[in-house]
Amino acid sequence: MRRSQLFIKTKKQAPADETAKNAQLLIRAGYIHKEMAGVYSYLPLGKIVIEKISQIVREEMNKIGGLEVLMSTLQNKEIWEITGRWDDKKVDNWFKTKLANGTDVGVGLTHEEPLINAIKNFVSSYKDLPIYPYQIQTKFRNELRAKSGLMRGREFLMKDLYSFSRSQKEHDKFYNDIAPNAYFEVYRRLDLGDITYKTFASGGYFSKFSLEFQTLSEVGEDTIYLDKTKRLAVNKEVYSDEVLNDLGLSKDGLEEVKAVEVGNIFPLGSGYSDALGLYFTDEHGQRQSVIMGCYGIGVSRLAGLLAEHFADERGLVWPVSVAPYAVYLACLEDKPEVKKLSDSVYSELTSAGISVLYDDRDERPGEKFADADLLGMPLRLIVSEKSIAGGGLELKSRTKDDTQIVPADSVKQLIVDRLSGLV
Amino acid sequence: MRRSQLFIKTKKQAPADETAKNAQLLIRAGYIHKEMAGVYSYLPLGKIVIEKISQIVREEMNKIGGLEVLMSTLQNKEIWEITGRWDDKKVDNWFKTKLANGTDVGVGLTHEEPLINAIKNFVSSYKDLPIYPYQIQTKFRNELRAKSGLMRGREFLMKDLYSFSRSQKEHDKFYNDIAPNAYFEVYRRLDLGDITYKTFASGGYFSKFSLEFQTLSEVGEDTIYLDKTKRLAVNKEVYSDEVLNDLGLSKDGLEEVKAVEVGNIFPLGSGYSDALGLYFTDEHGQRQSVIMGCYGIGVSRLAGLLAEHFADERGLVWPVSVAPYAVYLACLEDKPEVKKLSDSVYSELTSAGISVLYDDRDERPGEKFADADLLGMPLRLIVSEKSIAGGGLELKSRTKDDTQIVPADSVKQLIVDRLSGLV
Repeated sequence: MRRSQLFIKTKKQAPADETAKNAQLLIRAGYIHKEMAGVYSYLPLGKIVIEKISQIVREEMNKIGGLEVLMSTLQNKEIWEITGRWDDKKVDNWFKTKLANGTDVGVGLTHEEPLINAIKNFVSSYKDLPIYPYQIQTKFRNELRAKSGLMRGREFLMKDLYSFSRSQKEHDKFYNDIAPNAYFEVYRRLDLGDITYKTFASGGYFSKFSLEFQTLSEVGEDTIYLDKTKRLAVNKEVYSDEVLNDLGLSKDGLEEVKAVEVGNIFPLGSGYSDALGLYFTDEHGQRQSVIMGCYGIGVSRLAGLLAEHFADERGLVWPVSVAPYAVYLACLEDKPEVKKLSDSVYSELTSAGISVLYDDRDERPGEKFADADLLGMPLRLIVSEKSIAGGGLELKSRTKDDTQIVPADSVKQLIVDRLSGLV
Repeated sequence: MRRSQLFIKTKKQAPADETAKNAQLLIRAGYIHKEMAGVYSYLPLGKIVIEKISQIVREEMNKIGGLEVLMSTLQNKEIWEITGRWDDKKVDNWFKTKLANGTDVGVGLTHEEPLINAIKNFVSSYKDLPIYPYQIQTKFRNELRAKSGLMRGREFLMKDLYSFSRSQKEHDKFYNDIAPNAYFEVYRRLDLGDITYKTFASGGYFSKFSLEFQTLSEVGEDTIYLDKTKRLAVNKEVYSDEVLNDLGLSKDGLEEVKAVEVGNIFPLGSGYSDALGLYFTDEHGQRQSVIMGCYGIGVSRLAGLLAEHFADERGLVWPVSVAPYAVYLACLEDKPEVKKLSDSVYSELTSAGISVLYDDRDERPGEKFADADLLGMPLRLIVSEKSIAGGGLELKSRTKDDTQIVPADSVKQLIVDRLSGLV
């Protein structure tokens, strides 16, 4: 992509009303636009980041048997009344609206009820289970406060998978092993694997605990008690001697740290499925309850966390797996020799399948250096009279200070090598 | 995909309250689930169709300089008040809701206002234009009646591109040539090219005409007057002697036909951009208005139209470009030899990148034949004792009655050839 074709411009200052560092940076860098507190639009670079995270999540869900669906946003009140979750006193963050004929409808905040209702058409026998539908979809939650940028939105992108199992044993295997492994594979691919921990948290209506995936971060809204050796933590909300005892954790080994919840999974038992009349017939002809779980990952929250966590004082720093472009190529001077080499390297790299944001604008070199840092692509390539005199192009990693001059004819191979080292 | 892993089941009957043929078929075939009138969820096969159409649209928009964004659904009332479009008397199909603090917000039905507001941050000089942002996003319109299945939804998937040009001339080139060519490329790839016509329609507030893309269909909600030779039509809503004269059309050459609007493009002039204060400075330092156009394609409507248009009495018939799977492979008998050949062909085809829905279920052959027809994949492959005795597998196109026996070792190449002939 030529920067001259990309309509964004960077800013020195973030808007005064934006207090979250992730949103400040992403707005300054032209990745997102703030519509209102907790509601952001994704501009071209932000859209690519969101897509790359979604695709990683999608691949890992597909590997464990997930089947992608797309449920509606508008919600039929009647099916939520059956489980008692329509009532604003029970669920306090609905957005609700009305059809033209006056019928109340909800704006989707989660999808247990409609999904159960849909799959009732297909599930009758033990042969029809287990199943794992999921979606990557915009959710709406009417949060009273939304001051954390992409980390807590009123409108946000979420992956929600639902498991429908034939027995507690079948459920437990998926809930305790298969899903958490897939989650850690997602975090690993986002370079968050080392600092993300399985965390016991409140179980809600249907069980004692839920599991959260918490990434260590100064700006986290959660406090967790972490046993680094066991790679296990307990959310402050359930921290007690009894719980530590249950989990075989000792107070001495625990650290109190701030963290961001980057995923959560809930065992739902058969509370919702029974209420909505989803049952199956087992091998012996007996009617049985369907054991459910739900499994969330906040896709846009992860974008916010990655922005915030990896950033330095000069701007964004993206992991290779989600960077909108692998290389920021800047042509520093409007001289024929410089332009010619820039154009030919751009063409060579893009032909080789390497994604390049090519700063071909008529701007001062200082602007281009500053933008390369602020936008946060993993590698920077500079073409100038000086670099050509020195033997080629200047290559630099976003996270390192040292530069190297690379001859034009070996730049492609070197970039391929560098990128594979960064993945 | 193994059919045994896909949780859908087909039905003999559509729900009684569903009157649109496209939704009846898609529900019977397990592609979609009806949430309420005009609101559908996409089950795994439906989700793939929607994605394939979206990807075709995306590729064609990218070719003409489109840059993909994702605008928010929740809408800030203030920017819509500026153009007068918040008022329910002016725009009568808003869904509206409230933030927890009581602030009114809209649920997005189109995105001129927020997009202008966002790009005001980036556009100041003639060097910043033209630009063509677009999104593929769920839209919400509070239609009083929604009886046409996916063809007219209260919640639907739409591609909306917006052009921002520096002059009427620059606008006209994009509006009259570049965008329509890209649209026809989309319809061609969906096998609708031959029966889709550029149609003059009402221009709304800002101009005499808009352009619609109308596909001939018995179930179309629109009546158009078509000159097949000139490949041009006039929507009944603007049909008059004066208009025919304007367009150089003669009454004698026109046919009255029913059609479905599969795209529309509107010239917006500078009405919205002026109102929201989006201007640019030209080469001479003068402030100038930005000339806008908007360009819609109903992605989910196209899915409905394709379902309805190509279907026959046995079920769906998908164009190869959007079929969820290229091949429906059915293993007819639970015999070792039959299963072994089915499994190995499934494995061979999928390894070669051919998408296969493999009916490995323990069902009667009649069910499998009926499902293969109803689900509408372009090619059907049958493995049975009879086919093996005859020399291999039985291959059939969805749209033809003749079958042929293909030796196992040439099935892959034959399918590749057949599919390339069908594209």
